[in-house]
This record gives sequence, structure tokens and C-alpha cells, in this order.
Amino acid sequence: MSEQKGGFTLPGEAGFEKLTLELAQKWGADVIRDSDGTVLSDEITNAGYGIYSTICIIRDHNEWAKKNLDKLQQTFLMTNPKVAESDTIEIELMTDFFAEQFRVNDSAEAMKYWQVYDRTTDTLVAADKWSYDAEKGTVTVKGIVAWHSYTVSFMAYRIWEEISMYNHTTNNWDKEHLMQIDPVYPETQAYLKDWMENWCKTHPATTVVRFTSMFYNFVWIWGSSERNRNLYSDWASYDFTVSPRALDNFEKKYGYALTAEDFINQGKLHVTHMPGNQKKMDWISFINRFVIDFGKELIDIVHSYGKKAYVFYDDSWVGVEPYKPEFKEFGFDGLIKCVFSGYEVRLCSGADVETHELRLHPYLFPVGLGGAPTFMEGGNPTLDAKKYWISVRRALLRTPIDRIGLGGYLHLVQDFPDFVDYIAKISDEFRTLKELHKAGKPYCCKTKVAVLHSWGSMRSWSLSGHFHETFMHDLIHINEALSGLPLEVSFINFEDVKNGALNKVDVVINAGAAGSAWSGADAWKDEAVIETLTKWVHEGGTFIGVKEPSAVAGYDSFFRMAPVLGVDEDVIDRVCHGQWSFDVDEAEASKYFTKNSYVNRGVKCHLTDGKATVLAAKDNNPLVTINTFGKGKGIYLSSFEVNNANTRLLLNLILASGKEDSNEYYLTDNEQMECAYYPESKTLVVINNSDTTQTTTIKTEYGTKTVTLEAFDTNIQCIS
Amino acid sequence: MSEQKGGFTLPGEAGFEKLTLELAQKWGADVIRDSDGTVLSDEITNAGYGIYSTICIIRDHNEWAKKNLDKLQQTFLMTNPKVAESDTIEIELMTDFFAEQFRVNDSAEAMKYWQVYDRTTDTLVAADKWSYDAEKGTVTVKGIVAWHSYTVSFMAYRIWEEISMYNHTTNNWDKEHLMQIDPVYPETQAYLKDWMENWCKTHPATTVVRFTSMFYNFVWIWGSSERNRNLYSDWASYDFTVSPRALDNFEKKYGYALTAEDFINQGKLHVTHMPGNQKKMDWISFINRFVIDFGKELIDIVHSYGKKAYVFYDDSWVGVEPYKPEFKEFGFDGLIKCVFSGYEVRLCSGADVETHELRLHPYLFPVGLGGAPTFMEGGNPTLDAKKYWISVRRALLRTPIDRIGLGGYLHLVQDFPDFVDYIAKISDEFRTLKELHKAGKPYCCKTKVAVLHSWGSMRSWSLSGHFHETFMHDLIHINEALSGLPLEVSFINFEDVKNGALNKVDVVINAGAAGSAWSGADAWKDEAVIETLTKWVHEGGTFIGVKEPSAVAGYDSFFRMAPVLGVDEDVIDRVCHGQWSFDVDEAEASKYFTKNSYVNRGVKCHLTDGKATVLAAKDNNPLVTINTFGKGKGIYLSSFEVNNANTRLLLNLILASGKEDSNEYYLTDNEQMECAYYPESKTLVVINNSDTTQTTTIKTEYGTKTVTLEAFDTNIQCIS
Repeated sequence: MSEQKGGFTLPGEAGFEKLTLELAQKWGADVIRDSDGTVLSDEITNAGYGIYSTICIIRDHNEWAKKNLDKLQQTFLMTNPKVAESDTIEIELMTDFFAEQFRVNDSAEAMKYWQVYDRTTDTLVAADKWSYDAEKGTVTVKGIVAWHSYTVSFMAYRIWEEISMYNHTTNNWDKEHLMQIDPVYPETQAYLKDWMENWCKTHPATTVVRFTSMFYNFVWIWGSSERNRNLYSDWASYDFTVSPRALDNFEKKYGYALTAEDFINQGKLHVTHMPGNQKKMDWISFINRFVIDFGKELIDIVHSYGKKAYVFYDDSWVGVEPYKPEFKEFGFDGLIKCVFSGYEVRLCSGADVETHELRLHPYLFPVGLGGAPTFMEGGNPTLDAKKYWISVRRALLRTPIDRIGLGGYLHLVQDFPDFVDYIAKISDEFRTLKELHKAGKPYCCKTKVAVLHSWGSMRSWSLSGHFHETFMHDLIHINEALSGLPLEVSFINFEDVKNGALNKVDVVINAGAAGSAWSGADAWKDEAVIETLTKWVHEGGTFIGVKEPSAVAGYDSFFRMAPVLGVDEDVIDRVCHGQWSFDVDEAEASKYFTKNSYVNRGVKCHLTDGKATVLAAKDNNPLVTINTFGKGKGIYLSSFEVNNANTRLLLNLILASGKEDSNEYYLTDNEQMECAYYPESKTLVVINNSDTTQTTTIKTEYGTKTVTLEAFDTNIQCIS
Repeated sequence: MSEQKGGFTLPGEAGFEKLTLELAQKWGADVIRDSDGTVLSDEITNAGYGIYSTICIIRDHNEWAKKNLDKLQQTFLMTNPKVAESDTIEIELMTDFFAEQFRVNDSAEAMKYWQVYDRTTDTLVAADKWSYDAEKGTVTVKGIVAWHSYTVSFMAYRIWEEISMYNHTTNNWDKEHLMQIDPVYPETQAYLKDWMENWCKTHPATTVVRFTSMFYNFVWIWGSSERNRNLYSDWASYDFTVSPRALDNFEKKYGYALTAEDFINQGKLHVTHMPGNQKKMDWISFINRFVIDFGKELIDIVHSYGKKAYVFYDDSWVGVEPYKPEFKEFGFDGLIKCVFSGYEVRLCSGADVETHELRLHPYLFPVGLGGAPTFMEGGNPTLDAKKYWISVRRALLRTPIDRIGLGGYLHLVQDFPDFVDYIAKISDEFRTLKELHKAGKPYCCKTKVAVLHSWGSMRSWSLSGHFHETFMHDLIHINEALSGLPLEVSFINFEDVKNGALNKVDVVINAGAAGSAWSGADAWKDEAVIETLTKWVHEGGTFIGVKEPSAVAGYDSFFRMAPVLGVDEDVIDRVCHGQWSFDVDEAEASKYFTKNSYVNRGVKCHLTDGKATVLAAKDNNPLVTINTFGKGKGIYLSSFEVNNANTRLLLNLILASGKEDSNEYYLTDNEQMECAYYPESKTLVVINNSDTTQTTTIKTEYGTKTVTLEAFDTNIQCIS
């Protein structure tokens, strides 16, 4: 085990200088940071460590904001549909919304973007039919059809920065609400550049400025009722980037104007889980360009003071887009991602930037995100850390990461000495893995996998935010499983399919609900996609479809890839059709399943021509099937829930698709365990992903190795 | 209890003359019939009873059929989609189909209706690109796009009449296959009229000719594989009515031609559970007109011999349409319906014809429809009869029926004396109910109910066939519940809504899966429907939506009646929206539920504005809700499964909607029991719908009555 130190960022805390420096030593920290709510004392900043300082560039400017209330960030809001009982209706704008978060923007330049819709006919109501009463905060619509539903889409300032609003509300803070200013205005830009200069001047000890993140928060709309506080939230949607000025600028640049409805979308807004249209893609590009251009000006200031600039990939990250090629242009020196899951490690690692850093969980807070106790009575932060670590570690085996660290209030760990020891242990483990990666890539199976969805590489690994926010989508389970498998994984979209992406891969996975971005929705109407994929499978590729792969209504089959998969979903218009009976092929199933505990999450399917091999079924409903198609295969999984057994099932299916042997070198024979082999350093790392003691035997070029590991544990050994 | 006899049709059996006449006496039969597979001897026909003779007019003509193989009935068939591996594909037509049922019709007049489709693009392939090889039975398509799927839609003769094919196959018969001739040809018509004349002449003892049924069977397509024998079956679809001649005649009459695709519909065919388009409606009218016109010629012959003509409402009933106003034109004297369920009693009773007769279950066969033993070892036909009777009886309380009867092999009852006694008991019960109805209508609650779906009155009560074939549709459960409730029920379509039908009702029920005929599919795009219903609810009506009521994609809400219901379905594009929390209002729920055992069958919903009262929920998913809208209500049931408790729940919801009291006169206070009161004869009939002893107290104009009944039993008493 390597004994070198470094690559660790410690959250320091003024008033706890001794603890800070002790733990810096114990955990091998080379950098000390502040956190939201903590400061560093001179004793800490002068102790010879690198110093990270966090800044949230768009808040903490309340003095300026109060003088520039017309330069706060904004959003479109749509009132709940209301039924007209006559030819006139009065609609109160703010009834449904959290008054502390929003204020109507009824300026002339904003009101030209307001829209009234007849939602029954889904048509725009002419502007001369409605009027706004600023006093009452209502819109009155006249000359309309009774018994139709009407909505008003209006522009609102966001008067409470959402992350601090959340923390404030959750922790019952009693301090001034922070506002968020919008850098779209030249005045804001001038102010922020001054502020940045001044900040750099007044923080000489800081070696790294950590931006949290850039300018625009992911959308998070709160409601007026405590029974429905969270009206809408999506980690990757651009609703919070609008303003009359941005919209005007967009029109000048793109030659066409966007309307409120382009964002409101019948009140559904544009969730990341649905495919984007061209207008949305243009808007993303437009905002991304702006965030890069002005962001770079701030980063240049930071650099001019000899400091590095890192970006925290969360909160107000919208417009940063680390997976767009333009990301490089920011000039960031590092990217920091907080991680609950393995896929987030891959998300961090894959960004094109010099330093990749993980913020581990649990944070040093009394309670965790869900409100469960962590560093307080009833909490078990060490067990929490172990559970997060087994998700994170398997991805760390596959991909290099430069740094790890913690966040929060350091003093909280004082009562949890086993936590302190455990962090010391995994910090060393991390540094060893980092060294192994530095020496050379880990051994990887030959079969190459592409995940196919509407967003392609721009939404690699993550769907939209954390696992616990996206667990209802099968794809996040697939991504999490893939994040620690010994496979080369890429993320492609439907244009990529047509442009030759399949030539480089052996397996394509398409996983999602019908109509979603993950399944692909209308992209499957493009016969060129069907042709290319079908031909590719026939020539030897494997198409793995999960839940409602390639699903789109209007054709003879609901799954467009039904001829390849040999299964299709039971849809209502086929309710009078009979279905093929089948037997589960237990012998074939035993080649893939370590434990046949497959759970169906709702999709009912049938065999199309009776030829697919059924590996798992429930109530005559095939759950897992393999269909031979030419030299290739179509594999169907009715759902995918990530756990150790299903992760191994996925690996087995993929390896068989690539004609690789599941008893290949450097694979464990126990699905509770995984391993990675680093040929350059001849080092085998074996991990136990379970909470019980486990044993596995691994075939290596130097004979078989048998390893027994306690719950959650890691074994690192040289073999030769 | 009435002791009069009559109104009973007994299946006689030659060789069992003594038994036949004994049971005729015991069961109070006034008519003796033959069955498929039995004959009557002179001793029976001369015993002074009315004699029913069953004829299936389109089969039993094999001698003529063999000389006229080009006049057999036909159908369109579509080959399974097949992927082209190059620019040429060869498709074998009969691979998927049961060779004993179909023979390709490759005559010139048929082939002009054949079509080859590219199913990947859903486009017709030009006729000059494909050719047929009669020898090989294949179609070769050239100059096409590789990796697309192709199908051939062709015309096929049906060479084995489906009902006899089913009986033959099920019972391992070893006799000549019966063919079905098509009366669309003038030669067939001439032959059948001669045959009918001759039949009447040679059957002087027959008093009633029972047609089974007219000319065209419901669709029942069998497959070549024993693993998938039943490819498609729908009791109300018109696929088996086509022929080149009928299609040609249609074009002449309607001025436009139908194509194979108008029937094949991408291989989905046109199931009754989906809404029909105008072409389908035209074709139904066209066939109905033909069946009536030629049917009437045959019925006239029967009448000219002093015999009556009854029609059996099953098997080859397609084109008869007893719920179209034109039905009267046939001149039938009676309609016979075999009944498993209460709604089938209503279906029979509602047809505009003089005599309504029920064929009760179980049939006197060794096994039942599902293959379970009946009149053989292991069977319990008396218990079967009791279970059927409790479904049938509650509908008989509400609606008059003229006759009942049995079918099958009478000798089988010899070993089941308790069955013989039970039939005697319920025959008497039936005759008593018939007399009560004759004296006057039963007491009915004031609240009037309309069931709203795409077919309206044409598909009153039944969806498409029997309960066990349609159980997956919530509406058949609703219809079955309604069939015995003290309510006036009508069936309306969306045109009716716009034409004032709502003026006559208090409650509208819309129940079905999104896109189905029962929910309404695209009919809900018509804002006039929304307006009319919304206004009507606001003024006091109640809209009860079940499963996916008023569901159609493309609008702000998935349920178009969401503003009235206060709930909407969770759809994928709202996955990032928060949801209203709620508490189940147990106090309110107790007003409607006798037992809160509501089961969710898959639809996940949310409250739209938080105002609906939740009566039942699971996992924060509202299952039953009531929403006040103006003076009326929107009621949502996530599903409806018929049982005694849910039937009472439905009644309670309906009565409350009509502002009627659930403790009204002539309602039981035990949901396992029901009652009907006949004011003219001051008679109260109480029934026990359960298999255990039950007691109920009933409020009447003459004080409360308490009745205890054994399992399945009936009590009939005069009160005053």
C-alpha cells in the first residue's frame, strides 16, 4: 500500500485549528478549503497547505442587487390551468408560486414575452384580449370560449437564490435572503469583474478559486403550498437562464425569436428526460456560448493573480456543459464533482480538464440530503461512507481521478473516531489507485459498448442529477452498473448512429420509457437509424433494449427494433391478438444469471415470432430474452435495477455478445466482488461490494488467485 | 312463488325420450330443441311441445361448397414482418397460418386487392415490384431497401368453418371439415333460398327455426404453430366479411374503394376495443345492409311456412347488429343469447324484438369453455349453475326476459340429480320474475347514468364477447356492476354528447385505457365535447372517470377532463414535477366504501390542484378521488374490478352524485345482497349474491324488512 500523501482536500474550520491540522496530517491532505458556512483562520491558511476558496459568483451581492432589482435572474412561469365559466376569466399570477422565490416582472420588455393560452385547444390567445392589473397581480382575459382552460405564461424575477433558499428553509435560518444577479446585463458584468479583481486582491492565501458553479442554477420552482412545495426541478434544464435581454439577444443571433411557450411547453417545461427540439438545442448553445465567454473573463482575472480556477459541477452549473467540446475554452484548471454513485466518478473523470476532484459523501453535516441523521445521534457516518465508497471505488478502479476531498463542518467528526480512521484508510486506497492508473490503464475486456439516447455524449453517464433523483429511469441503473465494469463505454446519439459510430462498438444499449430521451422517442421514426442498426446487428452487433427500447407509436410494432429483439410490447390495439407460449430456457439462463431474481417494473411484452430464447419470465410475460438475428443478437430486458447480481448479468450478456468468455482473465467468480488488473504494475485490486465477507477466485496470467475479503474491503496485491 | 310453467327451452335427445319428457315436465318446458350434435326423435317432436330447430345457414353445405370452392368465405391475412437482407426478399404467404383454415385466393379479382408494405416506412410497395409464385406460395419483392421489414397482405379463402373447427379440434373429432359458403354471390343466394324452402318443407314439426346466427363469423384467425394457435379473435370485428365481390360492391355503393390495409391496419387489424374510423363504420353499414336484405329473404321463407325465426346472438352474428335501428327490418321473432354474466342479460333484453331468450350456463357438456370438468367426474355443475345464476339473476331483477333454456346433451344430467332440482328451482324463480315484470317496472333510483364511449349505443352493455375474453378492460366490470343496479343506464357516444344526450342524465361514466374505444382516444381532441361535459358538470352533473378517462396526448393534461376530475396521470414528460401530498379522507371514504379493498391496476396519478378529496390511495398514489366542480363532481377511480363490495361502492358514488341517499328505500344494507321492489305487485325480491348465509335490512314504504338468506338464495315476498 502506498504511503505517499496528497490529492486530498480537507474542509478546515476556524476555531478548530488543531483538529484541522491534525486531520490534514492523518488524511494526507495537501489542500485546505472553506465551505458554505465556514471560514479559515490565518493559523490554517498559513500552515503551508494549498488553500481552496469557494465563491458563488452570482449571489452574495445583495447590496448591489438591491440597487439593481431589474438585473436579477428570471424565469418563465405558467399559472395552473383555470376553467372559464363565461367569456371572461381573471387569473391571479402568483397563486401557485412561492412568493419568497418569485416576483412578477411586468416591465414592458418582459411583458412582450407574456402569453395567454387556451389549453383546451392549445392555441395562443391574441394579446388584445387580455390585460394585466399590476395592483391585483391578475390577468383578465375577455372574449374567450367558456368552459375552456386558460393559462398565463409570465416572466418573473427570482428573488431568492435557490440553493441558499433550500439551505435556509431546511435549517430554519433567520438571515437575509440572498439574491442572484444576472450577468446578461453589461452593468452586472462590469460589477462582477470589479468584484472578482477585488476578491483576488483580498485573498492572497487562496491558491485555488472554486466556482460554485457559474451563473445559472438548474431549475427549481417552488409552490405556494406546503403540500406541494417542489413544483418542478431538473438538474439539466435551462429554464432559469431566460431574461428579456437574453431572449432579444438570441433573436438577433439566431434570426428567430423564442416565445414563452418554447420554455413553458404546455406547463410541462422541457425536462431532460424528454428529447430536446432544435429550439432547445439552439438555446443551450446560445447560453453555453455566453457562459463560456463571460466566464472566461472571470477565470482570466483569477489566473492573472496566479491562482487556479476550478469549477464545482453542481448547483448553478447550467450553461457550463463539461461534455460539450467548447468546455475547454473556459480555461478551468480543475473540475470538482460531488459523488454518491459510480457514474458520477465517470462523469467527473471524462471532462476535458487538467484536475478531476471528487467530493465524497457523507458531507460533514448533522443530517444527510434526505434528512436522515449523519453526524449526530442515530447516525452512522462510517457505514454511510462505506456504502458510498463501494459505489465510488469500483468506478475509481476503471478511471483515473486526481483528487478527493470532503466538505462541511470538520468539528462534527470529533465524536466519530472510526469515521476519521476510515477516511484515512480510503484516502490511502485512493492514492494507491491513482498511482496504478498513472502507471498504465487497467486491463479491459475487448467488447465495446455504446449507450444510445437522444442526448448522446452531451449527457454521458448522468441523466439529470443524482441517482436518487433519477432512479425511476432504467438507464441510470445501467450507467451505474457500467461505471465499474471492465468495458470501454461511449455515449452516442441517433446522428452518431447514422455517421458511423456503430463501426467502433460491439454492443448498443437503448434503455428507457417510450417517448423519453433515453429511449429516443421520435428519433426512431428515422428509417436510416433502423436500417443502420438492423444491418449492424445482422453483421454481428448486439442491440440490448431495456424497458421500452426504440418505442414509438404509429408503426406495425411499438418497438421499432422488434424484428431484431424478437419481442414487442403489448399495446392496447393488439389486445385481441394471441401470444406465443414459451418455456424459460433455464440452461441458457444459467449462463448469464448468477441469481435469477429479475424484477419486472411494468412493461408487458410478447414474443413476435416465437423464436427468441426466454431467460426469465413472469406470468407468461417474457422479462429477459435473447434473439439471434443474422450473426448478431437482440437482447431484451423488461427493466434493469442496479445491484451486484444484475450488474454481473449485464456484464455476462455484454461479454457473450462480444463473443468473450465470462471465465476470462481478471473476472471474479463471485458477483459480490469485482477486480481490476493493472498490467504495467502487475497489480491486482480485488473489492468486496457487499456487507458480508466474500471469497472469489480469479483467473490471471499467473495462475488463479483466491481472495477472501471482509465486508466492503479492498485487497491490492502484486501478482507475477 | 308462481307455479305456472312455460318459458323454458329444453334440449331434447333421441334415445333418451323418457328423460326428455320427464325433465320437460319437471323444468316446466314448453319447447324442446335440438343441439349441435343431437337430434330429436318422432316420439319427442310429437309430444305436444313447441320444437326449436337450430340451423347454421352457411355451413352443412359441403357438397355444394366442393363444387363452388370460389364461393367460400374469405379474409385478408398479413404475413409476419420479415427483414430484407438485400434489395430482394421472398415471403412465403402461409408460413404463419393454420393450413387447415386458409387457402390463398390468387384469382385475378382477389389479387388486385393484395398489397406489399414496407413496414419500416409504413408505405405501400408499388405492384410492379413484386410477383407471386403460385407453385411455391411465395411473393418475391425486388428493388427494395435492405434492412426494412416487409409484409404481404393477401386474400385467403376460409376452408374450415371456425366454430366447427374449434369443436372438432377441442373434441378430437374425425369427420369431414365443414366449409362456409358466402351468400355474397348470387349463386349462393339462389342455392340457400332453395335449401331453406326445402328445409322448411322437410321439417313440419319445427315451430321455431333458430339461426346460428346469420352469415359471418366473428374473426378467429389461427396460426400454424401449436405454440401460437390463436393469432387473433374479436367477437365484433368484421374481418371475415370481405371478398373481392363485396369490396367491389362497396366501391360502387360508397364511391370509394377499400384496400387490404383498411382491414389489415399494420397487422393490428381493427379490434373493437379501439375506435373505428369512418371507413370501418361505412363497411359495417354496408355489410349490415346486405345481411339484413338477404337474411330477410330467408326469414320470409321461414314465416311462409308458419314457423317463427329466432336468431342466436353469437358465433356468426357479425353483420346482424341487434343494437342498430335497422335490426327490426330482419323480421326476427326472437333473439337468443347465451349468458355467463349479468350484462349479457341486459344485452339480450335491450334488443328490439318480440321474444328474448337466455341460454343459461353451464351447457350440458362434459367440460366447460375453459376445459374444466362440468358434467363428468370432478365437475360440480350445480355450483357452476349457482355462480352463473347470481350474475344472471340480479340483471333479471332489473329487466324483463321472456324465456330461458339450456343446450347440450341432456343425458349427461342423469348423474347429477341436484342439478336437475336446482334448474327446476331457478326456472320457477325465473317465471316468477317474468310475471313481476309483466305487472310493472321495478322501483328504480332517480339518478340516471350514461356510459360514454366511442361506439355508444351500438355497443351497449357488451364490449366484444364474453366477460372472460374482455376482463382486462375496466368497462366490462363497470357494465357488469351496472347490469343489476336499480338505475336507468344508457350508452352514448361523443356525437350524442354534442347533440344533447347529457340533458337526460345525471352521471356520465368514461372507463378505459388511453387510446381505446372505451376511453375515447382522439374523440377527446374535440373541444366541443370538453366544453359540453365541463359545463354540464359545472351545472350539477357528475363525470366518473376510470383508469385513463378522456386520455389523449398532445395537451397540457393527459386526461382532458383533468380540470373536472382534479387528477391527472403521471406521464413521462412530467417526471420532474413535484406532486401534491394528501391525506386519505377516511370519514368521507366511509360514506362510500363498505370495505376499502381497492386495488390499483397500474395507472399512477397525481392531484392537479390539491383540492380533490382522496378516498383511497396507495404509496401516495390517489386511487379513488372526488372533486367538486361547480355544482357537480368529478370522480376518479384508478381501476374498477367487479365484486360485491365494488358494485356497492359504484352505486354509492352514483347515488351521491344524483343527491340521492344511500339509505334510500329498497336498498340492502349488506353489500353481499341486493333487492328489487315491484310496486304494482307490491313484491320485494331479495337475493344473496354470496356463497355464505347473509342478512340484510331494507327500508320499505311499509317499514323495514329484515331478510336472512342462505348462500346464493332468493326470497320473494309481498309487502304491504
